[in-house]
Amino acid sequence: MNLDNARILVVGAGLMGAGIAQVAAQAGHAVALFDTRAGAADAAKAKLATTLEGLAAKGKLTADAVAATLARITPVAALQPADLVIEAIVENLDIKRALFAELEALLADDAIIATNTSSISVTALARGMKRPERLVGMHFFNPVPLMKLVEVVSGLGTDSHVAQAIATLAARWGKTPVHTRSTPGFIVNRIARPYYAEALMLLQDQAATPERIDACLRAAGFRMGPCELMDLIGHDTNFAVTNSVFAANFFDRRFTPSLVQQELVDAGYLGRKTGRGFYRYPEGAPAVPVAGADTPTAQRLVVHGHGFVADRFAAAFPQAARDTSSDWVGLEVDRTQLRLTDGRTAREIAAERELQAPVVVFDLPLGEPSHLAYAKSGDFNAPVGWLAAAGFQPVEMVDVPGLIVARTIAMLVNEANDAVQQGVCSEEGADAAMKLGVNYPAGPFEWQGRWGAAAIVALLDRLDAYHRGERYRVSPYLRLTTS
Amino acid sequence: MNLDNARILVVGAGLMGAGIAQVAAQAGHAVALFDTRAGAADAAKAKLATTLEGLAAKGKLTADAVAATLARITPVAALQPADLVIEAIVENLDIKRALFAELEALLADDAIIATNTSSISVTALARGMKRPERLVGMHFFNPVPLMKLVEVVSGLGTDSHVAQAIATLAARWGKTPVHTRSTPGFIVNRIARPYYAEALMLLQDQAATPERIDACLRAAGFRMGPCELMDLIGHDTNFAVTNSVFAANFFDRRFTPSLVQQELVDAGYLGRKTGRGFYRYPEGAPAVPVAGADTPTAQRLVVHGHGFVADRFAAAFPQAARDTSSDWVGLEVDRTQLRLTDGRTAREIAAERELQAPVVVFDLPLGEPSHLAYAKSGDFNAPVGWLAAAGFQPVEMVDVPGLIVARTIAMLVNEANDAVQQGVCSEEGADAAMKLGVNYPAGPFEWQGRWGAAAIVALLDRLDAYHRGERYRVSPYLRLTTS
Amino acid sequence: MNLDNARILVVGAGLMGAGIAQVAAQAGHAVALFDTRAGAADAAKAKLATTLEGLAAKGKLTADAVAATLARITPVAALQPADLVIEAIVENLDIKRALFAELEALLADDAIIATNTSSISVTALARGMKRPERLVGMHFFNPVPLMKLVEVVSGLGTDSHVAQAIATLAARWGKTPVHTRSTPGFIVNRIARPYYAEALMLLQDQAATPERIDACLRAAGFRMGPCELMDLIGHDTNFAVTNSVFAANFFDRRFTPSLVQQELVDAGYLGRKTGRGFYRYPEGAPAVPVAGADTPTAQRLVVHGHGFVADRFAAAFPQAARDTSSDWVGLEVDRTQLRLTDGRTAREIAAERELQAPVVVFDLPLGEPSHLAYAKSGDFNAPVGWLAAAGFQPVEMVDVPGLIVARTIAMLVNEANDAVQQGVCSEEGADAAMKLGVNYPAGPFEWQGRWGAAAIVALLDRLDAYHRGERYRVSPYLRLTTS
Repeated sequence: MNLDNARILVVGAGLMGAGIAQVAAQAGHAVALFDTRAGAADAAKAKLATTLEGLAAKGKLTADAVAATLARITPVAALQPADLVIEAIVENLDIKRALFAELEALLADDAIIATNTSSISVTALARGMKRPERLVGMHFFNPVPLMKLVEVVSGLGTDSHVAQAIATLAARWGKTPVHTRSTPGFIVNRIARPYYAEALMLLQDQAATPERIDACLRAAGFRMGPCELMDLIGHDTNFAVTNSVFAANFFDRRFTPSLVQQELVDAGYLGRKTGRGFYRYPEGAPAVPVAGADTPTAQRLVVHGHGFVADRFAAAFPQAARDTSSDWVGLEVDRTQLRLTDGRTAREIAAERELQAPVVVFDLPLGEPSHLAYAKSGDFNAPVGWLAAAGFQPVEMVDVPGLIVARTIAMLVNEANDAVQQGVCSEEGADAAMKLGVNYPAGPFEWQGRWGAAAIVALLDRLDAYHRGERYRVSPYLRLTTS
Repeated sequence: MNLDNARILVVGAGLMGAGIAQVAAQAGHAVALFDTRAGAADAAKAKLATTLEGLAAKGKLTADAVAATLARITPVAALQPADLVIEAIVENLDIKRALFAELEALLADDAIIATNTSSISVTALARGMKRPERLVGMHFFNPVPLMKLVEVVSGLGTDSHVAQAIATLAARWGKTPVHTRSTPGFIVNRIARPYYAEALMLLQDQAATPERIDACLRAAGFRMGPCELMDLIGHDTNFAVTNSVFAANFFDRRFTPSLVQQELVDAGYLGRKTGRGFYRYPEGAPAVPVAGADTPTAQRLVVHGHGFVADRFAAAFPQAARDTSSDWVGLEVDRTQLRLTDGRTAREIAAERELQAPVVVFDLPLGEPSHLAYAKSGDFNAPVGWLAAAGFQPVEMVDVPGLIVARTIAMLVNEANDAVQQGVCSEEGADAAMKLGVNYPAGPFEWQGRWGAAAIVALLDRLDAYHRGERYRVSPYLRLTTS
Repeated sequence: MNLDNARILVVGAGLMGAGIAQVAAQAGHAVALFDTRAGAADAAKAKLATTLEGLAAKGKLTADAVAATLARITPVAALQPADLVIEAIVENLDIKRALFAELEALLADDAIIATNTSSISVTALARGMKRPERLVGMHFFNPVPLMKLVEVVSGLGTDSHVAQAIATLAARWGKTPVHTRSTPGFIVNRIARPYYAEALMLLQDQAATPERIDACLRAAGFRMGPCELMDLIGHDTNFAVTNSVFAANFFDRRFTPSLVQQELVDAGYLGRKTGRGFYRYPEGAPAVPVAGADTPTAQRLVVHGHGFVADRFAAAFPQAARDTSSDWVGLEVDRTQLRLTDGRTAREIAAERELQAPVVVFDLPLGEPSHLAYAKSGDFNAPVGWLAAAGFQPVEMVDVPGLIVARTIAMLVNEANDAVQQGVCSEEGADAAMKLGVNYPAGPFEWQGRWGAAAIVALLDRLDAYHRGERYRVSPYLRLTTS
């Protein structure tokens, strides 16, 4: 099944279909482009011509390359035979099935049909096909010419040679193909759920404001915080996806929708597109109040523990003593401990200390020093100036387990482990998918390697003790890693 | 936004609307009363006249007051401008929204619209309004002239000055306003759920009969037990509300409906109105068999622990020794311990005692000494005559965690803590709402203060260990209180 | 209410109705057989004649008995009075209710109506009847003449004398009646859920293949493994029942459907009837690879613990030392322990051992020595030849808690305990129902007696720690047994 010189039929001349046609043509394939809407394929080609000529004008493409690419794309008025059909039509099970039935009447027995569906089961789409083994998912991300990820989705009946041929083709086109089984959300849309869900849980528990949550997660390396991202996606869309994933997983509590988002939808505050979501637009997120930096003086300063967080503090404070044998990570400033969150609240830790000396817990510092959440065990004047002196902008929040970044990362890692346990993808596939599909600064298994599985398990167990139910239960695959 | 002299339009001349018109008129407002059903407003005024004249005949009102009140109420045949519109029409989102659209075309920009909805999201009702900030919930309880509680419900877009103006007005009318955010069930209908749910769980587990459950909760100061109350409300109504709250909370196990109630609905045994529910009517609940009182004699009698329960026993038995250092509360009678429930079963406690000496656990005695549930660790002749001698009527039940009153109160307290954590209301608001809205003998936070947060947390943790899932998980807000 | 000589009307001449008519006629009753489909009753009688004459030809019945049985069955063209009506029509609430209304107009006041429903609430069916107390469930299993079980189902309004009369009648007919309350799935279809659910969970967690799961459960004495059984039932049917039980139990996690089965349904791989399910047909399940048997030699061989499993090993290896004081059961072979699963993974046990010596856990050996699952704590050459030497065929699987048979039996026992706690049936009833209704090799309470409640509770607690949520929570009725 070599598709190097495949004649390709793209069905659907919308944004995704046109992008796929462009990428295929640029890779040298003869591409027929079909759309049931009269004139749509021609319009798409015309628009593509404008785009490519614009790139040529900027010197990014030669005129020859533009001409060659366009010459390879032929708008057609009817379905026609091809070696590979890529379907990018409306997300509707019945309409797609009807298309596949029409196609099977036209195609040679060894032709492949790829669907660009982002949310429908490839297994379900194949039902009723004469040759279900030739249907495979080929899930591109928007904008197609720029985004490197292609999820290659195998349904229950997909021939593994077909999936491999599509992966090889995607690689030839300069993409990074990642194999996945057809399960709700595939890889990216499944593993990303906690990025929204943890923020919504923090908001529901009144633990922090949207702008603080967003600032801290941007500081961890995410391009957008979850609240501003949901405002961009639209709360109606995000809420609908959440409900659909929730139902598809038989109401697994990990995927529970949030009353906070329900309220926004009920109010019609759908985000940017309505001028109001978590934030008002065009203003967007207000500035985050950073805790005032007291002058860092101390009689006694000790950096505790080991690992990248301890090292960062040791580097920031060369004058500090170092105790690498501690079972906690952070900074001791006279009687106050500033501890990296292990999932316990500051109050819980303080309750276990002699004389209940004050405790500050701070969030996992993943990115360049910037906004970093902290919570304190009581109403005292915390020496958070030391966090500032280490380069962070301390952001106070309510004393809940796992703060902001730590719980979010832990849950992303947890979900990725579940996906691997259930055979949805490989560890490498999960990492590639999250970095290329939604621009995460690292893959879940990279975070796991850096932070450590044991620390993540401990933090999740604390969240589970706090919330119960099954939501924060440690993925068996992750727990096994630590035993 | 001063509404002291507001002209008021009441829309809907049913039971609630007429009551609201009466209260407003008695407070001196000019009130227009409208109903889409021809003649309904006139009929409501006529009925009100009869009622008020009856009160005058009994000397509870002067004839002048009656005349003045009636003179202020004007049935009107069409919607008309007013400073404040109070809507009390059918509970239907679309019909209410259509009304608000009509009203906005009539009203001045600074007029306020209040909705008496008991179950629809104020946030959702405001969607589509030109000025969503002027819509607020003003949830009266039936009968309006008598019930003191008004839930003042802010949707996501409600102007806080509007909510405050309504609260001030309600106070001027002699009501107790309580602020709440628009969330499923607001305050009263949310916090009250466990009052039904725990009874249904006990029935499902065959732990006690309806009459025993009812007797024990009446003894704790509730006007009606949960089973007779559900019989009064109607099981179809109560089950529908439960299902709606369950769905609105995304199937949170705390709100799971019960197969026991499902059965009653399936059978058409809907309660008083069909002549049969948990009980048959007009007979109602049969008498509860009280455990026979053995003659209380003992070689050794010790009152253990401290707090109001220990004090009650110490007062009842001045001859008893006292051990205030014990980690349990109750009475030791020779080898048998009679212990206030801490959430463990009698059998669990007995299993930990040397020689497995017999254990009786008894329920939380909150009200005047009366029916009090107990369970025993085995098939022995328990000295429950001592409970009788302390003034209680001992009611035997199956040995399940938390017995009847203790688990019910613990869950009411837990739910109230959740509501506060999520910003639905204040602690004081929760207490006022439950006492005035459903006549609870005390507010949840008053119970918490009296019984102690630590004891409640311990009991809930035991229930959680027994039932798992998220149903009995301790509210984070409550657990924080104890650390 | 003596039904010994009852005139019987059977409504519905399908497979079940015809079987019921046959059994009743063979017991000497005059039976009228009615079906709304013209000719259906006559056709059913004709088919029955052929069957009975076939049995006579084989010498299993006398010609007289055949003639007498057939003479007692009268196809009728309209409903007619009878002492007992047995309804075996389509599973549709409204259609059955309409039939009962028609029947009540015809029947004497003391006539009984029995419904053969397998899935509709008897309580709900009785709603609207003039005399709901006379409706009772009489649930036969297919094929009626051969299967001994009859579930006698009481709705909320069923007169207990009516249920008793039906039970007496069933016994007279050579059946084993078991009383049950009308709850989702009654006894058999409720308690059997984990037989499918645990297999599906193992598949979802990629812990073993269908053929390994099936082989191990057959070895435990079940006639068919769960995967081949679901292939036989049809995945569409099994999935629909699961979803219905899940919804009826308000989404209790114990009854969560599986994505694995959803996939099969989505694909149209419905089992035998479509030629493909877990297996392809007519081939069926492939052979299970049995782990290669190393030569069993050891410096040191000790049988640990007591109970039937330890005894089996002691009998197999008379040369072994015996340590009955151990807190685990199994075989020690030099440094390696081969342990009966207690719910912990091999890795968890190994992590607690000094020097992390290798651990193999093996499954509960219930039946004749045959396929037996095991898992090991690491990548070492496990001495599973000793299992082979004890007569087993060792089947390797992933190291998950409770392996295959142990977790399945534990959950069947757990569900049966729940049923008893909730008053659905007695312990004896549960045992009889599972052995006679679905041919289990033993009843749940028989397994509990043999394996021990404490071991089952321990194993379930381990599964709960692994999976969280409420799915593996120990039934309170079971846990009480152990305290």
